Amino acid sequence: MNSVYDPNELQSPAQRECDLLARLPTFLAYAKQECDHYRHILNDIDVTAISSRQSLTSVPVTRKSDLIGLQAKNMPFAGLNASSSTPSRIFQSPGPIFEPEHDSKDWWRMGAAFYGAGFRAGERVQNCLSYHLSPGGFIMDSGAKACGCSVIPAGPGQTELQLDIIEQLRPEGYSGTPSFLNILLQKGKEQGRDISSMTKALVSGEALTPSLQATFKATGISVSQAYATADIGLIAYETCPGSGLVVAEDILVEIVRPGSQELVADGEIGEVVVTSFNPDYPLIRFATGDLSSIMPGAGSCGRTNMRIRGWQGRADQTTKVKGMFIHPEQVERIRLSHGELAKVRLVVTNIDDNDQMTLHCEVSDAGRSDVDMARVAQTMKAITKLTGYVELVAPGSLSDDGIVIEDLR
Amino acid sequence: MNSVYDPNELQSPAQRECDLLARLPTFLAYAKQECDHYRHILNDIDVTAISSRQSLTSVPVTRKSDLIGLQAKNMPFAGLNASSSTPSRIFQSPGPIFEPEHDSKDWWRMGAAFYGAGFRAGERVQNCLSYHLSPGGFIMDSGAKACGCSVIPAGPGQTELQLDIIEQLRPEGYSGTPSFLNILLQKGKEQGRDISSMTKALVSGEALTPSLQATFKATGISVSQAYATADIGLIAYETCPGSGLVVAEDILVEIVRPGSQELVADGEIGEVVVTSFNPDYPLIRFATGDLSSIMPGAGSCGRTNMRIRGWQGRADQTTKVKGMFIHPEQVERIRLSHGELAKVRLVVTNIDDNDQMTLHCEVSDAGRSDVDMARVAQTMKAITKLTGYVELVAPGSLSDDGIVIEDLR
Repeated sequence: MNSVYDPNELQSPAQRECDLLARLPTFLAYAKQECDHYRHILNDIDVTAISSRQSLTSVPVTRKSDLIGLQAKNMPFAGLNASSSTPSRIFQSPGPIFEPEHDSKDWWRMGAAFYGAGFRAGERVQNCLSYHLSPGGFIMDSGAKACGCSVIPAGPGQTELQLDIIEQLRPEGYSGTPSFLNILLQKGKEQGRDISSMTKALVSGEALTPSLQATFKATGISVSQAYATADIGLIAYETCPGSGLVVAEDILVEIVRPGSQELVADGEIGEVVVTSFNPDYPLIRFATGDLSSIMPGAGSCGRTNMRIRGWQGRADQTTKVKGMFIHPEQVERIRLSHGELAKVRLVVTNIDDNDQMTLHCEVSDAGRSDVDMARVAQTMKAITKLTGYVELVAPGSLSDDGIVIEDLR
Repeated sequence: MNSVYDPNELQSPAQRECDLLARLPTFLAYAKQECDHYRHILNDIDVTAISSRQSLTSVPVTRKSDLIGLQAKNMPFAGLNASSSTPSRIFQSPGPIFEPEHDSKDWWRMGAAFYGAGFRAGERVQNCLSYHLSPGGFIMDSGAKACGCSVIPAGPGQTELQLDIIEQLRPEGYSGTPSFLNILLQKGKEQGRDISSMTKALVSGEALTPSLQATFKATGISVSQAYATADIGLIAYETCPGSGLVVAEDILVEIVRPGSQELVADGEIGEVVVTSFNPDYPLIRFATGDLSSIMPGAGSCGRTNMRIRGWQGRADQTTKVKGMFIHPEQVERIRLSHGELAKVRLVVTNIDDNDQMTLHCEVSDAGRSDVDMARVAQTMKAITKLTGYVELVAPGSLSDDGIVIEDLR
């Protein structure tokens, strides 16, 4: 199937990579000039030299979890937005985090996800994400419209009334959370409603569990997932259930070890970090706080872009030990202080009502004799203000699951 | 103050009238060709001859209250929409009545109302009408954006969270119902919140009572009303509180005796009937079901269009007498059956638990001797299936309040 929303979905991976990287120097220079935040964090960086994935890792990540504090100091968008443009809408997502929207067509780049899920021009979509305060409803709405569909802006409530509308308008599809689709189907069944018009759905905002997926399949509804955030819009989308999520065109996705600036190996779980070339709201190495991993090879749908496994957990593993916050960034600083440490993982336990932390360290066989465990323990104390144990583990024994702080309490 | 949203707001009334009437023949021909409904109801009408307000009265009105039945037969828009265009959104308002929205800028023509209420480019508007199912939220949203404002799509709930947002984003204005603005202000005062950024509001969807208006004024918020419907968008808007609502550019407004096709005299209360030259959703002599009346002369704001008094009640006075529905249209048919009747009003009472109806008839002095009251009573029985009394009243004694059926039970 070679029918796609954007012909670029079929281009050679090398061409895509080349085009995206070629845009970096100009775009970073633009962001440095237009946005207070990037003027500050790119101050000492020669952006003309940033034109490869390797050189991009020298650019500091901007963490979604830091936006709350950054925005409080510089309302509403912490200077990540282009200062010369006025947003058409301003949202507030829980946190609180403020997000802008501008008016150009398919601003959230969601059209490809609707198309990939089977939506076509002239069809009707009942959109059941909320349009109030956070942008979920509008993100879906603009994607469906970009595909030429008519949107029924229904929101996430009034189930009986929504069933009336499905019977009357006979929409071909649904967009919203998987759980609300399930509520509609269950109630529709109980009441003997005719919802046979609905044959496809694009879901987001929640995990699509295998049991829900099976329920939907049994009802004759083909369900695809979209992975999108209120900052970036579309990041990746499903076209053939079970074969992962294809990364959206026009963004650069990196998978980074939580707390660090460094890429993980292909296939290993890490934090999703996105560079989005949005002139209104440039996001450069924006760490989403979500874990995912790259899938090898190409999917069966013909699209050539990199695929990721979808949402595999939260990257922010910040926890409290003996009443003190421990962040993944601190664990990374310990690792970087000792060149012989290849990979580390802080394990937190509780023994006799006392919190205890142990740093498991992977060291290459060559470097094994060089490790001074007492010095590592000193560094740990200096950085975390807490005493902890240090253990050497065999190379390859720490699993590639994106976990930097493992809380076993 | 000669600052307006659209320069046409300052043109001479004669020029405006001439321009609007000149558009009728072509537009009616377009509607007849593009829309099933108009093909049907304009079938026997030579639309090229419809180029004056007088000739326009020969075109049958389409009543909002009839849309429910008409739409059920021809989903979703009963053939009032242009058949060749796909709406970007479909709404459902209580009734149920379906309404389309298309994507062009300021499709609901609300920009003028926001501008008239004092909103300017670069300002922020907290929009507290719902975006779900019925179009209120989007009608306000698109108008504020057309003025260059940034919209915070807040919806009508989560009061505490909305107060947080007002303190953080400091929006200049509010749009929504007057009652929700009052809730925000009351709760804000109770909790000692800083909502001083809000200095203006555009309200709609409810009557703005004098006591609410006084409360808002005391809080330092200048509040203007917009009269808009889910079918037409903007009909009229307030620019100087107390001096009526200026009719929007680009629509023709008639004030019609309820149940009839006929214009009332200037100043008399009647039903608001609108012709909107919207190529996506032509509305030709669309009877809104609302009562209003024309105000004489020009307002003080410099805008030259006709002004109306705002919402003065519901035009649909359908009631039940002895278990039978009586419609204003039936009262009008009785009047039209007897040329000597100038004006009539059906008064319904209940005496000893029996419904009673009396047709009050105004007759010119000249025609007074010609009235055969027994024959009028026969006509009343033939049309309503009910026996009623007939009473002659002095010319000018029935008040000009738009009431055709007066229910005194």
